[in-house]
Amino acid sequence: MNHFIYAADLFGTVVFAISGALAAGRLRMDPFGVLVLAGVTAVGGGTVRDAILGATPVFWITDPTYIWLIAITAALVMLLVRCPRRLSGKWFQVADAFGLAVFTVIGVQKALRFGVDPVIAVMMGTMTGVMGGMIRDLLCREVPLVLRTEIYATACIVGGAIYTCALALELALVPAALLAMSGTLLLRLIGIFTGLSLPAFALDHPKP
Amino acid sequence: MNHFIYAADLFGTVVFAISGALAAGRLRMDPFGVLVLAGVTAVGGGTVRDAILGATPVFWITDPTYIWLIAITAALVMLLVRCPRRLSGKWFQVADAFGLAVFTVIGVQKALRFGVDPVIAVMMGTMTGVMGGMIRDLLCREVPLVLRTEIYATACIVGGAIYTCALALELALVPAALLAMSGTLLLRLIGIFTGLSLPAFALDHPKP
Amino acid sequence: MNHFIYAADLFGTVVFAISGALAAGRLRMDPFGVLVLAGVTAVGGGTVRDAILGATPVFWITDPTYIWLIAITAALVMLLVRCPRRLSGKWFQVADAFGLAVFTVIGVQKALRFGVDPVIAVMMGTMTGVMGGMIRDLLCREVPLVLRTEIYATACIVGGAIYTCALALELALVPAALLAMSGTLLLRLIGIFTGLSLPAFALDHPKP
Repeated sequence: MNHFIYAADLFGTVVFAISGALAAGRLRMDPFGVLVLAGVTAVGGGTVRDAILGATPVFWITDPTYIWLIAITAALVMLLVRCPRRLSGKWFQVADAFGLAVFTVIGVQKALRFGVDPVIAVMMGTMTGVMGGMIRDLLCREVPLVLRTEIYATACIVGGAIYTCALALELALVPAALLAMSGTLLLRLIGIFTGLSLPAFALDHPKP
Repeated sequence: MNHFIYAADLFGTVVFAISGALAAGRLRMDPFGVLVLAGVTAVGGGTVRDAILGATPVFWITDPTYIWLIAITAALVMLLVRCPRRLSGKWFQVADAFGLAVFTVIGVQKALRFGVDPVIAVMMGTMTGVMGGMIRDLLCREVPLVLRTEIYATACIVGGAIYTCALALELALVPAALLAMSGTLLLRLIGIFTGLSLPAFALDHPKP
Repeated sequence: MNHFIYAADLFGTVVFAISGALAAGRLRMDPFGVLVLAGVTAVGGGTVRDAILGATPVFWITDPTYIWLIAITAALVMLLVRCPRRLSGKWFQVADAFGLAVFTVIGVQKALRFGVDPVIAVMMGTMTGVMGGMIRDLLCREVPLVLRTEIYATACIVGGAIYTCALALELALVPAALLAMSGTLLLRLIGIFTGLSLPAFALDHPKP
């Protein structure tokens, strides 16, 4: 993997781990719970992607850097964070958007290396980006946020589509990745700063 | 795969996708949420089966028809459905029962091709039939319906058992499949039209 | 696998299956639900471990003994248990602690056989021990208990670390396993009989 992409991947891992650790803190979990939520949020999406592709052992088994990074992040969050309000601010969401953009591109890349259809590759990229947060929300007994609000998964889909198109147009890997990441990032930032959201599909409850 | 089985599989995929999309609508999810719930319900069972068997990349990666079909179904449900009551009627449950019957047979078939024990094959068939709905319910923060009520999983188990027995008695694949599907379908229809249910195993809550 | 370890593994499977079946009974599930909860609790951790390692088909497909044992256990619980209070007592928790100790060692063993990093191996052992209970709690719509309270996962981590260290010091497999199991068991028994728990990481809810 390209050095820049790898560094960005590790940065995204830390940001996602922080968001998982904070969710654990809100539910007053013990240190193991914090570790699990941090880990699941950070590598959950890529793990499901690898298991489905058959890219086993999954990526964080081959390269334990991810697990060390998550453990250190979880420990630091427990030691240092007292006021989560600061970490739910806009700047943290921007960091999260950056992580989302990297994860998406890496997911698409890995899927393409397995020779899958471009549409499936975009799907695998989106899965890499959003599924960690979905499992985090499930473990916290919440309906996953990403299914309900804001331009989040949509940003992944668009970024993934840009990446596969750019490669099809024979752009080199790095410019294609940067272009795709900018697309995801831009769309996600619009979501964060305008509060814009896709229209919900709302049915009445047919149950009594 | 036999043409008839394949067509029936695609039909089952559409029906299961509709049921996922409707669940998303009841929770007022956005279009991505509708897509995820439709997809998870339709291919979730087969995905877990393939990951556990080691049949990776899983089936919908090798044949993207399933994903296209789910996307189109989700889009049509969002555009057309305004009154979900009509889609919760008996005839939709019958279509669902048909999907269940096909998914079970396909699951048993795939497991047998991996040379597993017949009991495990029946289990994998049942998993293919019911696990998509279970993940859908989990994402909607409900205790999976299939664990609580009606003759649903039981119909899969019986159908799967018929199929493995028929093959052991050296019946050809297609008549064996039709016989097994009829068994699942019949049992499930009895469940739908009589409301018959297995007795619950009810313990008092030992917690204070 | 060593005969003693295998027997201990089957014992742990029965204990974990009982705990799953009881959880199903508390939610008044039907017999299929009891079977699913018993199975998920007993082999859920090992299944996720094998899928992530790429050790497919997963262990209970290769050796159906586990599934038969779970089915018989679930049936016996439904037939015999009327007063779950007796099964939530201290002695059942001790049996559960024993199962936890075995599962952890087996998980570490399997991961090491795949040539993974020792830290990852400890993680896979912990996963084998605790993830079945986590999926059980998810299906019951509860925040997994293991993330919140008591010395449970910690006992797995310590046991797994003892095991990998003992092997690194060139102890033979069986004494290393016994030593590691004693470590997990001891720590878990302290948790059970003193009610000692790790301090929670508690953040205020930043949401309005």
